[in-house]
Amino acid sequence: MKGSRRYWPHAAALLTLMTVAAWTIRALGSGVTAPPAAQSTRPAQGVMPQYDKSGALLLPEDYRRWIMVGASLGLSYAEGPASHEMFAHTLMEPTAYRYFVETGTFREGTMFALLLQGTGDKVLPARRGQFANEVHGVEMAVKDSSHVPEGWAYYGFAGTGAAVRSTAPAEPKNSCFTCHAEHAARDHVFLQFYPLLTDAAAAGAKGH
Amino acid sequence: MKGSRRYWPHAAALLTLMTVAAWTIRALGSGVTAPPAAQSTRPAQGVMPQYDKSGALLLPEDYRRWIMVGASLGLSYAEGPASHEMFAHTLMEPTAYRYFVETGTFREGTMFALLLQGTGDKVLPARRGQFANEVHGVEMAVKDSSHVPEGWAYYGFAGTGAAVRSTAPAEPKNSCFTCHAEHAARDHVFLQFYPLLTDAAAAGAKGH
Repeated sequence: MKGSRRYWPHAAALLTLMTVAAWTIRALGSGVTAPPAAQSTRPAQGVMPQYDKSGALLLPEDYRRWIMVGASLGLSYAEGPASHEMFAHTLMEPTAYRYFVETGTFREGTMFALLLQGTGDKVLPARRGQFANEVHGVEMAVKDSSHVPEGWAYYGFAGTGAAVRSTAPAEPKNSCFTCHAEHAARDHVFLQFYPLLTDAAAAGAKGH
Repeated sequence: MKGSRRYWPHAAALLTLMTVAAWTIRALGSGVTAPPAAQSTRPAQGVMPQYDKSGALLLPEDYRRWIMVGASLGLSYAEGPASHEMFAHTLMEPTAYRYFVETGTFREGTMFALLLQGTGDKVLPARRGQFANEVHGVEMAVKDSSHVPEGWAYYGFAGTGAAVRSTAPAEPKNSCFTCHAEHAARDHVFLQFYPLLTDAAAAGAKGH
């Protein structure tokens, strides 16, 4: 997969170096170190979505290491009997996560990945219940007004069988956007399903 | 909560500075940057568990931002009817995650957190299925032979009601350790429930 994670270059890189240098000097002085936190607090330094020449979104190389903010099993927006139940996990790009925790807003460039997994059961020592098994697909939600006029766009990376494609064009507006615009608790994001994110933002607003 | 995340000081901090400096210089030259990856590949630079004076484990401040490697709903090691079903997510400390992906082994200091959440349903736009709701508890598994002779120890941070305590003593050996020693697919870890971690290690072994 091509390098899909790219920072704002040059000025930001220099600033990062200076920030880390300052942090290291403080660390050497105190003997007790803290992780560098400042580098992801400025939106200009946040990770941004990347597209190919056709405008298709590149699936970021590191999305499975993003921060888990929501989980569900068999969640469906349709009426009727359940078909193939899947686990779904919403993972959030870490610099956009930090920005939301500090401000309560989703900055331009915010990316979510929805990881879909089949279910497994009866694997010892488990005698009841289900666990998330093989990956069945990946979808993404991205806020990027420079890419689509409505701000948010949605992308499906399903390939043949269990394969995950590395690029995806934006879905037609009526396939995801309309429902997100209507039902989202905040700015097209189904925050009502993400209590971990709400909790983190509440703690962030209190300054810890 | 007291600072529970602490890096190996001095030498590691200097090395980090040099690594980031080298990365920044490369970034300035190429115009296309990559995140600094080298800083977490050496076990000596890994994040380690922290304990209070009584030997109780400190709950790391950032555990909810760790990497999700496993998920389940209602998973139980007991026979009999289901009681209170919960979502459980296994989150892995990122430097230990990277070490495992690169080596296939759990280094000393490896930490897992098990985040337990209740279930929610019938919140629009979802018409079917369940999502992970409020946090009910946190447990941890830690490999630290300098702390317990058997290597792995298990910790429960349940407080009163939904509260999560900030420290926990190790559980008695027969409450968790015995089952993990008997059933774990690898080194006391239930890797059979963590296909995401297995996949990441397989990709890491291939060098991508």
